[in-house]
Amino acid sequence: METRPYIPWDMLNSFMIDVFKAYGVPEEDAAICADVLIESDRRGIESHGCNRFKPIYLDRIKNGTLLPVTKIDIVKETPTTVVMDANNGMGMVASYRMMEMLVEKARTYGMAGGTVFNSTHYGIAGYWTGMAERAGMIGITGTNARPSVAPTWGVEPMMGTNPLTFTMPTDEEFPFNFDCATSTVQNGKIEYYERIGKPTPAGLVVTPDGGTMTDSGQILRDMRQGQCALTPLGGLGEDTGGYKGYGFTTIVEILSAALAGGPYMKELSGKNPDGSNKMYRLGHFFFVINPEFFMGLDTFRETAGGICRELRASQKAPGAERIYTAGEKEWDAWQERKDKGCPVGESVQKELLYLRDTCNLDYRFPFED
Amino acid sequence: METRPYIPWDMLNSFMIDVFKAYGVPEEDAAICADVLIESDRRGIESHGCNRFKPIYLDRIKNGTLLPVTKIDIVKETPTTVVMDANNGMGMVASYRMMEMLVEKARTYGMAGGTVFNSTHYGIAGYWTGMAERAGMIGITGTNARPSVAPTWGVEPMMGTNPLTFTMPTDEEFPFNFDCATSTVQNGKIEYYERIGKPTPAGLVVTPDGGTMTDSGQILRDMRQGQCALTPLGGLGEDTGGYKGYGFTTIVEILSAALAGGPYMKELSGKNPDGSNKMYRLGHFFFVINPEFFMGLDTFRETAGGICRELRASQKAPGAERIYTAGEKEWDAWQERKDKGCPVGESVQKELLYLRDTCNLDYRFPFED
Repeated sequence: METRPYIPWDMLNSFMIDVFKAYGVPEEDAAICADVLIESDRRGIESHGCNRFKPIYLDRIKNGTLLPVTKIDIVKETPTTVVMDANNGMGMVASYRMMEMLVEKARTYGMAGGTVFNSTHYGIAGYWTGMAERAGMIGITGTNARPSVAPTWGVEPMMGTNPLTFTMPTDEEFPFNFDCATSTVQNGKIEYYERIGKPTPAGLVVTPDGGTMTDSGQILRDMRQGQCALTPLGGLGEDTGGYKGYGFTTIVEILSAALAGGPYMKELSGKNPDGSNKMYRLGHFFFVINPEFFMGLDTFRETAGGICRELRASQKAPGAERIYTAGEKEWDAWQERKDKGCPVGESVQKELLYLRDTCNLDYRFPFED
Repeated sequence: METRPYIPWDMLNSFMIDVFKAYGVPEEDAAICADVLIESDRRGIESHGCNRFKPIYLDRIKNGTLLPVTKIDIVKETPTTVVMDANNGMGMVASYRMMEMLVEKARTYGMAGGTVFNSTHYGIAGYWTGMAERAGMIGITGTNARPSVAPTWGVEPMMGTNPLTFTMPTDEEFPFNFDCATSTVQNGKIEYYERIGKPTPAGLVVTPDGGTMTDSGQILRDMRQGQCALTPLGGLGEDTGGYKGYGFTTIVEILSAALAGGPYMKELSGKNPDGSNKMYRLGHFFFVINPEFFMGLDTFRETAGGICRELRASQKAPGAERIYTAGEKEWDAWQERKDKGCPVGESVQKELLYLRDTCNLDYRFPFED
């Protein structure tokens, strides 16, 4: 049962655009960035939505690690590929321009691929693959990030939580949308465990002695000091397949940097050795595949939808309510909140009020009544 | 310490070609199939090498579920894509022809993709991505397979162990080669646990009551009856990320079938409802990406190699000997056995002798002395 107050989607959208503009982001770019952040809330992915508006975007514009005006250089372009320098501007703006180009290329050539370097946080990965899917195509993307994941048999945070994301058209109301980190969990989940006062399951975090820890508050404190690391999907060691998740994380690390020759791993910490801030210089990759160049979009939709339906209808574990397919929970979240608006907790409310007042904007939020 | 006798690689190769020919496989195709199977042994992946020669290929030719002469129909071809019908012939021959075509297309267009349907077991997935890598490109492949993996919160074997495989060039002696199932383990690993008399770790298998089991022998018996299923990477339920592995397995299931509109999941059991054999009708997909259409192969190699080296050099857990990167163990296996030959255990020896005698071939194996 949702107990938080809602903000109408339209109001949230125009508010975020106005704030971005007040921070120096051009109007057209502000509209893109607001839509990416709000799409996360629409899907119920609250770790990447308006909760990040101030700390991950606006505060970084203020401290100089994120440039509000995104100067995009196309470093290389061929009929099927694009290499783009985002010049430390808004990663979401660069990614949007990239996906527009790749969808057009895949419309003509069937396959397209691109990479962005010198970039910043690009929001939910599934936004970009969703642009391909709405054009009737398969989207694949990944990005590197600040080091937090240790390799199998290692204890040092080396790689980002590196999502490897696929969205594919189906004949259902919503696509197959697989959008998550290649680590067992990401920070946001441990913050959630701490908030609800629960221990973190064993095996999700590796400590310098090669063991694991479950105290959620302690994990968060140690993580900030680089004193523990997340495990790759599959967990600690090799017995439960941890080396497989480690492989997926590495694939994303390589593709995010190597297509452009950009920086990787420890270079992406956002900190200089003296503790001062530096540019993040993230890299992302994007591939688009057009099913019309295979046996056609209708065939693809029908087969993909059939697989999803049969999975959901298969025999459940006793006590299990539902078998989901990827993207279904996000679709359910949207059904639940599309008419109500975006639920905002106390900390986000405070940030929105702070931004309104410091930007001298004329909004009155429903939660103020 | 290896105690099994070795067979020289050349002898094994010419023997396998001769046997395939005796089973009706054309000489050129036999050479491809022998090389795929032997490559698995070269890499130390003994679950997919000459141990499978008789049961998975020759016995299936004999029982009519695998046609020795591979009639390939190109159902659709564009400058960047290929859809191929393998007509229930050798999946390895169709995949070889496919990769030859895709590498040429990616040389010209930068990106290429293909799918094969009505196919059969294509050997190690990494063979196909390796063909791209040897041409200086990134290879990606996956295949569906007989249903054995349950979705998260499900207990029924629905999907194959569906590998999602990437090989990428580096500046080292060997590429980054990630080649494994998207389930926590595959059957071969449980057979291994049984052979060495060890229990299977908890969470790798789900039973009809939604729990797990660890008795390796019992698991194998129950698997054959469809009475238990493998879990996706990340294990049971959602706490340790099982839904992520489930997502990867589903991605492979969709891409393997939907690009061609081929069959999927339960349709791939190889059995009719009355228990008689039917054609497997597997599907595979392949993507090739040419780094020369991005910032160039040398840049790609250097960055990918740098990532691998830094991962290996990172801080190890106390007691851990080494941090590996994907493909390194396979490279080590090859270094160890390249001059000695292929080690063969007793059961494989018996199969080789049986094949020699029934095919009236004139070979004398070192293990006979």
